[in-house]
Amino acid sequence: MHDLVNTHHEVLEEAATALASRTYYSRYPESPSPRVYGEGSAERGTQAFEETRNDVFRALGDQPTTGDHVASEVSPYGPPLGVRYPRLDVDAAMAAARAAMPAWRDAGPRARAAVCVEIIDRINARSHEMAHAVMHTSGQPFVMAFQAGGPHAQDRALEAVVAALVEQERVPETVVWEKPSKREPVRMRKDFRVVPRGVGLVIGCNTFPTWNAYPGLFASLATGNAVVVKPHPRAVLPLAITVAVAREVLTEAGFDPALVQLAAEDDGEGLAKELALRPEVALIDYTGGPAFGRWLEQEAGSGARQVYTETAGLNSVVVHSTDDLKGMLSNLAFSFSLYSGQMCTAPQNVYLPAGGIDTDQGHLSFDEAAAELAEAIRQFTADDAKAVEVLGATVNDDVRARATDVPALAERVGGTVVLDSRAVTHPSYPDAVVRTPALVAVDAANREAYRAECFGPVAFLIRTGSTEESLQLLTETVREHGGMTASVYATGEETLEDAREAVAEAGVALSENLTGPIYVNQTAAFSDYHGTGANPAANAVYTDAAFVASRFRVVTSRRHV
Amino acid sequence: MHDLVNTHHEVLEEAATALASRTYYSRYPESPSPRVYGEGSAERGTQAFEETRNDVFRALGDQPTTGDHVASEVSPYGPPLGVRYPRLDVDAAMAAARAAMPAWRDAGPRARAAVCVEIIDRINARSHEMAHAVMHTSGQPFVMAFQAGGPHAQDRALEAVVAALVEQERVPETVVWEKPSKREPVRMRKDFRVVPRGVGLVIGCNTFPTWNAYPGLFASLATGNAVVVKPHPRAVLPLAITVAVAREVLTEAGFDPALVQLAAEDDGEGLAKELALRPEVALIDYTGGPAFGRWLEQEAGSGARQVYTETAGLNSVVVHSTDDLKGMLSNLAFSFSLYSGQMCTAPQNVYLPAGGIDTDQGHLSFDEAAAELAEAIRQFTADDAKAVEVLGATVNDDVRARATDVPALAERVGGTVVLDSRAVTHPSYPDAVVRTPALVAVDAANREAYRAECFGPVAFLIRTGSTEESLQLLTETVREHGGMTASVYATGEETLEDAREAVAEAGVALSENLTGPIYVNQTAAFSDYHGTGANPAANAVYTDAAFVASRFRVVTSRRHV
Repeated sequence: MHDLVNTHHEVLEEAATALASRTYYSRYPESPSPRVYGEGSAERGTQAFEETRNDVFRALGDQPTTGDHVASEVSPYGPPLGVRYPRLDVDAAMAAARAAMPAWRDAGPRARAAVCVEIIDRINARSHEMAHAVMHTSGQPFVMAFQAGGPHAQDRALEAVVAALVEQERVPETVVWEKPSKREPVRMRKDFRVVPRGVGLVIGCNTFPTWNAYPGLFASLATGNAVVVKPHPRAVLPLAITVAVAREVLTEAGFDPALVQLAAEDDGEGLAKELALRPEVALIDYTGGPAFGRWLEQEAGSGARQVYTETAGLNSVVVHSTDDLKGMLSNLAFSFSLYSGQMCTAPQNVYLPAGGIDTDQGHLSFDEAAAELAEAIRQFTADDAKAVEVLGATVNDDVRARATDVPALAERVGGTVVLDSRAVTHPSYPDAVVRTPALVAVDAANREAYRAECFGPVAFLIRTGSTEESLQLLTETVREHGGMTASVYATGEETLEDAREAVAEAGVALSENLTGPIYVNQTAAFSDYHGTGANPAANAVYTDAAFVASRFRVVTSRRHV
Repeated sequence: MHDLVNTHHEVLEEAATALASRTYYSRYPESPSPRVYGEGSAERGTQAFEETRNDVFRALGDQPTTGDHVASEVSPYGPPLGVRYPRLDVDAAMAAARAAMPAWRDAGPRARAAVCVEIIDRINARSHEMAHAVMHTSGQPFVMAFQAGGPHAQDRALEAVVAALVEQERVPETVVWEKPSKREPVRMRKDFRVVPRGVGLVIGCNTFPTWNAYPGLFASLATGNAVVVKPHPRAVLPLAITVAVAREVLTEAGFDPALVQLAAEDDGEGLAKELALRPEVALIDYTGGPAFGRWLEQEAGSGARQVYTETAGLNSVVVHSTDDLKGMLSNLAFSFSLYSGQMCTAPQNVYLPAGGIDTDQGHLSFDEAAAELAEAIRQFTADDAKAVEVLGATVNDDVRARATDVPALAERVGGTVVLDSRAVTHPSYPDAVVRTPALVAVDAANREAYRAECFGPVAFLIRTGSTEESLQLLTETVREHGGMTASVYATGEETLEDAREAVAEAGVALSENLTGPIYVNQTAAFSDYHGTGANPAANAVYTDAAFVASRFRVVTSRRHV
């Protein structure tokens, strides 16, 4: 038995118990405080990040390369990162990945899980460095980059490892099967062997390079597959660090580092397509735009390849009434503002009845409710220095285009501007494009306006005939165009029940009456499912059984005894 | 709680225990004896079958129809069946299926499982009638049609129900999540609701109309989906009876019979394509040829639809040595002969070293071993009246073409005939085309000869340089072209270990040294996996977690408490 199996026995048991019951569990503290991560950890993280910049990334060891390098990363806060990554020799890498698998397969589920925990623990120790890497590739504000890119991503990684372990250990290793018969019973011994599917390909995204890549990466690795990680060309560093740590731990643990390889590319090279069609690739995990997601499902995902995608959707909020107007407004203002709405879980479509809403501050007309929400956002983002720590920076020109000319956007979709986006000056990074959330009011009948994802800091206030219509539109739009989150505000149990029915039909998770420190954009590992797989936004769910059960297969050998 | 939950509590518990441990379990007795199924059951079955013939099939109740009928069934034993099935009105059927789902969803996993058991029990009571229906659509011999089409299929159905139940019950119904905080802990109640994916489409095959359809049918139904069953145009009756029973039980249990509907078609109509592309369809289970299977995976299976396929492969036998030549020969002769090799699990490619094999009867050269195997088949099928009870009838013209001109087939592939197929006269059905298995010897280098499925009573004896080469060819051909079964004969543990390594790489289940009453073609529900999902022959496995885990989704609603 591998040494690490004892080392990490307890965490695997605890995490498995939490996942089965979906109770609270976290291994990796979300506070960046030196009291948690040690004195000097923040400074060491900054130093490690700065030392990596403007140099060749050497920590991938003997990963096969073509000899040249790629370097497309420019921080959304301004400066190019200047890190040059060795370009992967794909043929050699695939051969190496295949060759590495038999020993990893034969180590068994528990040894693999223990090695994975060790990898995640070592990544956790570098969380401050990772925070800078995530911040300067995604544009997330620092604390969010630390949390979502570090411990929250690590908890999701551990969750995937545990889900994979539990799933593999449900298969008995051996059984004696005894069939009664008139004469002697027929006895056979059957050995069940867990085998990997092949090479897993993980295609990372720009906005959550680690959080969205770890579940697939660790689920595939823990089930015996080798993994090739293809980061977004502008968000390589967080996954380069991840792969480097994984290779280091695998080597120390006596396995072949070719089990995890980095396939960095320059902007526009289309390496994901090439990798996705390689015959060695059996599993693909993808987060990104729906067009390429659809291509992966249709062209790469047929036959022997399993494709897990998370693309885009219409996250919806239905407001009927509230007994805590202030709490609702501040909760929503935060959800819209956090990382400038550049989360796959950020709310976009807010359904409000034309007749207005009842609140603890009295009845508000549609326009009054809209004005209150606008004011809440305005106040929450009023102070530039504080605002940038929530808003972060806009990640790309598409988002900037939408955020910087909201009146044009409103005119194009036939809506009216309730709140324009404001340019915020970042005190430390003058080149960063930072924008506050905008609100555009549209009529429910104007479906074209709000039936596509509008990624970034723009939300629609949709004037409906009734809450019944609001819920109906939620269901219809999510069924058709997908959705990662839904939220409802209502004081009456009947409306809440209607909302629960609506999301059961829509296939999207519901948060009810969030007025405190929990936001609809956020899910907790081990308890909240991320995605449902029941609408077009995602077929991947972090982490349900379906996310891990198809990543390995069982090969039986049977004989008479 | 539904009444049937108590009625079937025990069987669900017992079956779940068996499935988890993969020990022996069977609910439905495989003996057609009146001591088991009751005095007169055989006669009543015959009568019921005869009464159904040459008439409209009325037992589908108020299933929506277009008003006309379809009738393409001709018994492989000769006579047309003459059953006229109402043609399904697809638009109305899909609307009815969708409307039926919410109440079925809200009944919960255990009530659904109990209703499914009741359906299977009622099907079991009609096993003699089903045996005739299966025999006269597939061409299976009677006893096989009874067992494989009846109790064995029913056990596989129950297995799918239990796997689905266990998988759904792994999801907790509710939890209070409590996150520690410096102040008061943050508490949320989270309700997890199992929801169906949509309409399941089951596309049946000609040779095993029930056995291959039941796992998908019952897995989809038990997870809350409605199911449309599209039988093979020449094997409708077994599934028509099945659907009729399901609708009857659903109605009695207080559910909408539109949860299970039959979509019969005439030969060549291409209804499966139309159904597979319907937006309501979210799950597809298919058994049949690889060309349509590939189309389903590529065209229908992208995006929100999950496609489970079982198509075709190269089932392989590697012979190195044996300490029971007689047992080996009779076991293989039976496996080749059973249903004229028209099983997806029947062996086709037999790898024998050119240097011959060691046996308890002394060393046999390749030619001697081939001759012994030919002689064993000849003797086993010598008596026409006995032979037809194993061989059954050839199911279609493709099979007949291959079986009736083996010398031409051998010449085409560059092989030599070791044993020609013999025409057998069926004592009761003179029009049936019944053929004994043929053996064609080819050189291993002549890969073209044996790298495609040759469905029916023809097997290849492949002359290899060594058992090492035999195992290498097994791995390569199965990786490339798929395989449902593999088998090895070897007296030494080292060769058996090599074989286990080879099948782990190939991704196919192995039977070792079968010389008794267990055959490589046969798998036992609750213990043996049917298929592995690890090679191109099938991505569906009866029944692993992956087969059921993606058939439902979980929708959460969370709120502060």
